[in-house]
Amino acid sequence: MEGKMKVIMKKEPKAGAVLAEMEIPKIGPKDILVKVMATSICGTDAHIYSWDAWSQKRIKPPYVMGHEFAGEVVEVGADVTAIKVGDVVSTETHIVCGVCDLCTTGNAHICRDTAILGVDTNGTYAEYVAIPESNAWKNPKGIDPAYLAVQEPLGNAVHTLLAGDIIGKTVAVVGCGPIGIMAVAVAKAVSASKVIAIEVNEYRLELAKKLGADIVINPLKEDPIAKILEVTGGMGVDVVAEMSGNALAIQQALKYIKLGGRMALLGIPTADVAIDIANDVVFKGITLQGIAGRKMYDTWFQVKGLIESGNLNLEEIITHRLPMEDFEEGFKLMASGNCGKVVLYPNKEALDSFAK
Amino acid sequence: MEGKMKVIMKKEPKAGAVLAEMEIPKIGPKDILVKVMATSICGTDAHIYSWDAWSQKRIKPPYVMGHEFAGEVVEVGADVTAIKVGDVVSTETHIVCGVCDLCTTGNAHICRDTAILGVDTNGTYAEYVAIPESNAWKNPKGIDPAYLAVQEPLGNAVHTLLAGDIIGKTVAVVGCGPIGIMAVAVAKAVSASKVIAIEVNEYRLELAKKLGADIVINPLKEDPIAKILEVTGGMGVDVVAEMSGNALAIQQALKYIKLGGRMALLGIPTADVAIDIANDVVFKGITLQGIAGRKMYDTWFQVKGLIESGNLNLEEIITHRLPMEDFEEGFKLMASGNCGKVVLYPNKEALDSFAK
Amino acid sequence: MEGKMKVIMKKEPKAGAVLAEMEIPKIGPKDILVKVMATSICGTDAHIYSWDAWSQKRIKPPYVMGHEFAGEVVEVGADVTAIKVGDVVSTETHIVCGVCDLCTTGNAHICRDTAILGVDTNGTYAEYVAIPESNAWKNPKGIDPAYLAVQEPLGNAVHTLLAGDIIGKTVAVVGCGPIGIMAVAVAKAVSASKVIAIEVNEYRLELAKKLGADIVINPLKEDPIAKILEVTGGMGVDVVAEMSGNALAIQQALKYIKLGGRMALLGIPTADVAIDIANDVVFKGITLQGIAGRKMYDTWFQVKGLIESGNLNLEEIITHRLPMEDFEEGFKLMASGNCGKVVLYPNKEALDSFAK
Amino acid sequence: MEGKMKVIMKKEPKAGAVLAEMEIPKIGPKDILVKVMATSICGTDAHIYSWDAWSQKRIKPPYVMGHEFAGEVVEVGADVTAIKVGDVVSTETHIVCGVCDLCTTGNAHICRDTAILGVDTNGTYAEYVAIPESNAWKNPKGIDPAYLAVQEPLGNAVHTLLAGDIIGKTVAVVGCGPIGIMAVAVAKAVSASKVIAIEVNEYRLELAKKLGADIVINPLKEDPIAKILEVTGGMGVDVVAEMSGNALAIQQALKYIKLGGRMALLGIPTADVAIDIANDVVFKGITLQGIAGRKMYDTWFQVKGLIESGNLNLEEIITHRLPMEDFEEGFKLMASGNCGKVVLYPNKEALDSFAK
Repeated sequence: MEGKMKVIMKKEPKAGAVLAEMEIPKIGPKDILVKVMATSICGTDAHIYSWDAWSQKRIKPPYVMGHEFAGEVVEVGADVTAIKVGDVVSTETHIVCGVCDLCTTGNAHICRDTAILGVDTNGTYAEYVAIPESNAWKNPKGIDPAYLAVQEPLGNAVHTLLAGDIIGKTVAVVGCGPIGIMAVAVAKAVSASKVIAIEVNEYRLELAKKLGADIVINPLKEDPIAKILEVTGGMGVDVVAEMSGNALAIQQALKYIKLGGRMALLGIPTADVAIDIANDVVFKGITLQGIAGRKMYDTWFQVKGLIESGNLNLEEIITHRLPMEDFEEGFKLMASGNCGKVVLYPNKEALDSFAK
Repeated sequence: MEGKMKVIMKKEPKAGAVLAEMEIPKIGPKDILVKVMATSICGTDAHIYSWDAWSQKRIKPPYVMGHEFAGEVVEVGADVTAIKVGDVVSTETHIVCGVCDLCTTGNAHICRDTAILGVDTNGTYAEYVAIPESNAWKNPKGIDPAYLAVQEPLGNAVHTLLAGDIIGKTVAVVGCGPIGIMAVAVAKAVSASKVIAIEVNEYRLELAKKLGADIVINPLKEDPIAKILEVTGGMGVDVVAEMSGNALAIQQALKYIKLGGRMALLGIPTADVAIDIANDVVFKGITLQGIAGRKMYDTWFQVKGLIESGNLNLEEIITHRLPMEDFEEGFKLMASGNCGKVVLYPNKEALDSFAK
Repeated sequence: MEGKMKVIMKKEPKAGAVLAEMEIPKIGPKDILVKVMATSICGTDAHIYSWDAWSQKRIKPPYVMGHEFAGEVVEVGADVTAIKVGDVVSTETHIVCGVCDLCTTGNAHICRDTAILGVDTNGTYAEYVAIPESNAWKNPKGIDPAYLAVQEPLGNAVHTLLAGDIIGKTVAVVGCGPIGIMAVAVAKAVSASKVIAIEVNEYRLELAKKLGADIVINPLKEDPIAKILEVTGGMGVDVVAEMSGNALAIQQALKYIKLGGRMALLGIPTADVAIDIANDVVFKGITLQGIAGRKMYDTWFQVKGLIESGNLNLEEIITHRLPMEDFEEGFKLMASGNCGKVVLYPNKEALDSFAK
Repeated sequence: MEGKMKVIMKKEPKAGAVLAEMEIPKIGPKDILVKVMATSICGTDAHIYSWDAWSQKRIKPPYVMGHEFAGEVVEVGADVTAIKVGDVVSTETHIVCGVCDLCTTGNAHICRDTAILGVDTNGTYAEYVAIPESNAWKNPKGIDPAYLAVQEPLGNAVHTLLAGDIIGKTVAVVGCGPIGIMAVAVAKAVSASKVIAIEVNEYRLELAKKLGADIVINPLKEDPIAKILEVTGGMGVDVVAEMSGNALAIQQALKYIKLGGRMALLGIPTADVAIDIANDVVFKGITLQGIAGRKMYDTWFQVKGLIESGNLNLEEIITHRLPMEDFEEGFKLMASGNCGKVVLYPNKEALDSFAK
């Protein structure tokens, strides 16, 4: 396919991004070219936009941002076998080696030789994107592409909660950004006995309540340790889904987690965290799980199954839908915290047809 | 406590049972005496009532029937520590040794030295029942005792489904007696992606639908193998919950179960079943799990958590509430298959206060 | 590479095989060409050689037999990335699709679209063999190629035993053909508390003893149920590794397996087996696991780790080493049962350099 | 039983202990009285002896020290059912409530209401000790009581290593005190592919080598991160068994552990440890497991099975055997680090009959 396309480009090593034009990408024999229908803003995109310390080390402008998306396949490479033109796909964003010890034992999500779409390669804030066939996730047709796009971050929430027992358990979700509110929705959908949401932003706390949180706690207003012990009869919670990356929040969670409990860590602290290993881990018999990405592709099948169950309220998770040109408004929303998932549409008509 | 009480007694080694009077039981130092609020009819009770081949070998009349119940504690033995007079309790019905290799490694439910309440001992179809403290399950107050009584069979359904992965999976529930319809409800509550109910009785098939079954199949009317392959895109189901004990149903299930799938067996065949181990088990990489009772007490905590989640529709599961004196009507209902769970009330006022 | 090579060919649809000559295979872009150093006889090869009922349905002569092997890479296709000329490789024999739901969730070993090397394709009883790169297992250098060849069947034994808890458990290995004796060796190497070998052939029973079986039972001479209950204090064994495919042996195993025990089934019965599901599976809380092939590639890493531990006695497992031309003697040995693993060498010098 | 007995008593809140005489304990109805045959010194005992900060907060002198032991039952309480006079028993040292949510779901080892024998109650450095029947572990007869005594700390090593996959894995044992060297022995016995021991004391490093460590590292002499990456081909180890409680050692371990690896923490740091959660836990997909005590009684059965396998070299683990009167020498050995397990004998003849 030939021609020009609109993209959101991180052009220079500084805050912000620009609307730009570039050639539609050429694909290799194992790649597919996809026309982007909807692409959502990830916290990682917000970091890159604001050009924080992590971004300055990792990102090499100029390049096209974005990695959560859904689109229609318009071209396939010569060696592509399973995906056809016309398929509607989403994408796993870890592009891995496929042959190492990790990739061949169910641990591809932590392959040492990983490139991330829209971080290390040109991404999905574009009219077209090229991805390897092996990263494509084929969707059923006729579903709102925004729902399809958010399967990727939903996978993070699912990987975090389902990394151990969750049915009938008390669960604290720490940090209610977009993935946190998804975790609330998933925990409710699988019948956690009680879902407790902890978050400093009141908009997001409200959103957590809408998605089913039984109890919401703003740690700026009340002591989460005291409150959680109170609502769990002094036992603490069975499971903590840590999505804040906040050192104090992590330390508090280790106090209100139940003996023998499980704490799954998805949030990324920016510095070392002081842990009382003796009292909070060893004597309590706690398990801490580092969660990276999504299992390839066990988590994707779990996400698919959960969506098919009909128990997930995806519409409430998506709070804003914007034309791609309004990306600055989207990033402002993300910076304010006053949003759930924000979805961008490269084509105005796609937006009009699905938005309410 | 002294005095007489009404009971439903299996008096003689033949079909039926009688309403009788006997002394309120005396309790030992480790026992508690409970005033029965509600007691439900189990399939096992129906077998004993009809005096089938199994009952003739196992049951030694005269004795008091019944084992699913909830009641209020009215007396406790000298060594009882955790239960108090006034507590509302249900009961685990396996009375086990507590000291063997199985009891001390989480397998008490299959202890070699087990007596079953209401089978090997006097049971709960009575105004009062004596149980060991270690079998009592303490409930929160203010809940419909019928809901508390059915926790025991609900535990069978939960043990069966949660013996492996279930979230986001396709599930076939084979046999929709009371435990089968509970299994349908539980599978929906934990977001199985698709729940398929298989049952020959149309009343129960309707009930399965009410409790959330996505697809119902009457194998007398259509081929379950063809139908399930059709609705699963030729893949078959991830999980089979076998609750029929029917040889043909088991053989069919092994055909429509997915490669690598899991079949949990709770139903009790009355004769050997011919299994094509080569093609249906080995080459397909299937796991078959024999399920006995409930894990003591992991399953009880799962049941509690599921009820607390608010996602289970217990009211639809309980289709009939009767005064204990009307037990014959209850057993007729069970024999006809035209019921879900049937609950008996020794005290008329208890029935009146909770029944709709 | 051009030229002719020697092969053992199943030429016609009848018992036996012939030494033949054919072109060295051409490789595709994703394939590698390997010079065979050692190739061992599998039970499957023996079935094909004797032309049993299964073979008559499955095998399409003429073709080259054999699939267990080790060799040196002499040529690689254009798209091959991880394997180099000079590497010493073994091979996983399931050639799978790589893109289906099973392949992408750790279940490639039961992929619906599987071809088996040396069964559905030309195999390793040859001077050269072409295999897909994705099936190659790269070995360290300097190790006896016979040891490398038997990693594949060793993987079956490892997959069977390690499909659940095994350390410190009592284990019965039922059927001591080549994989059975490997299972004995593995069970000993991982500190099963007691390893019981059951086999009708006295040579193999002796071999099991050599490889560490604590107790050996010839079921033609004594009752395995009585004997196993005797040596386990009436408890039965924790784990059964079923490698006989014999209906009676399976039925007996379900009697002497412990309550809550695990039975992993690798043996292939030729007809349905009547199972007392009520008493032997449900009430006992037994788990039955169908075991197919090896997990790709978790099992291969386990095999590698076990060999590196130095606790496996591979030399005792390999009882016969023959020039490939003497394949008829090899198949005779297999038919008699008087052997462990029989290894064939296409090149006389390779045999001379490693054989004792 | 009436009369006086010799004991080692922590008499005053200061360093040291004294040989003293006191009444043989009276037993309650659920207790047993045991004549101590052998009792070994735990690291906890050494802390109490030296009167460190932890001891000053926890221990209430005067009381009898010691908790690892084996002895012969000489008296049983009225309600004792499973243990008989003449039985040879060891003891689980966590005396738990038996009725809480943790005790009834396989987590008794972290019961909130735990008393520890020889810490919170009079212990086993005595001629006789009273223990609850429910804490007694019945042994086979005719085995060296020193071996039976060390089952308790061996249980810690087993619980640590077997809390996840271990067979065929590379394992680093960090800290080679008595439990560390046991962990080395257990890792070898279950065929870890490579066992790496890390320890600053040269005597213990030698001991680790004797017990089968493939590689030993003194972190005062060489960089453990560099060395471990070197011997694992840059991959790092699959499993870390952390038994040092040293902050730097823990931080280093998180660098040399493999992606997706498992770190089981038994060592007790005396202060908070700064953890790089982002890079060392989340991105690496690491699991950290706090390990307390032994599972009651799953771990005891694993220990029994491992001993029965014959693959554990218990004699090398026990480096010193002393009359109980020589306890000061024992504690000096522990303080120096120049020992494995030190066993005390209250009766000289028992020592003479088993010591070499």
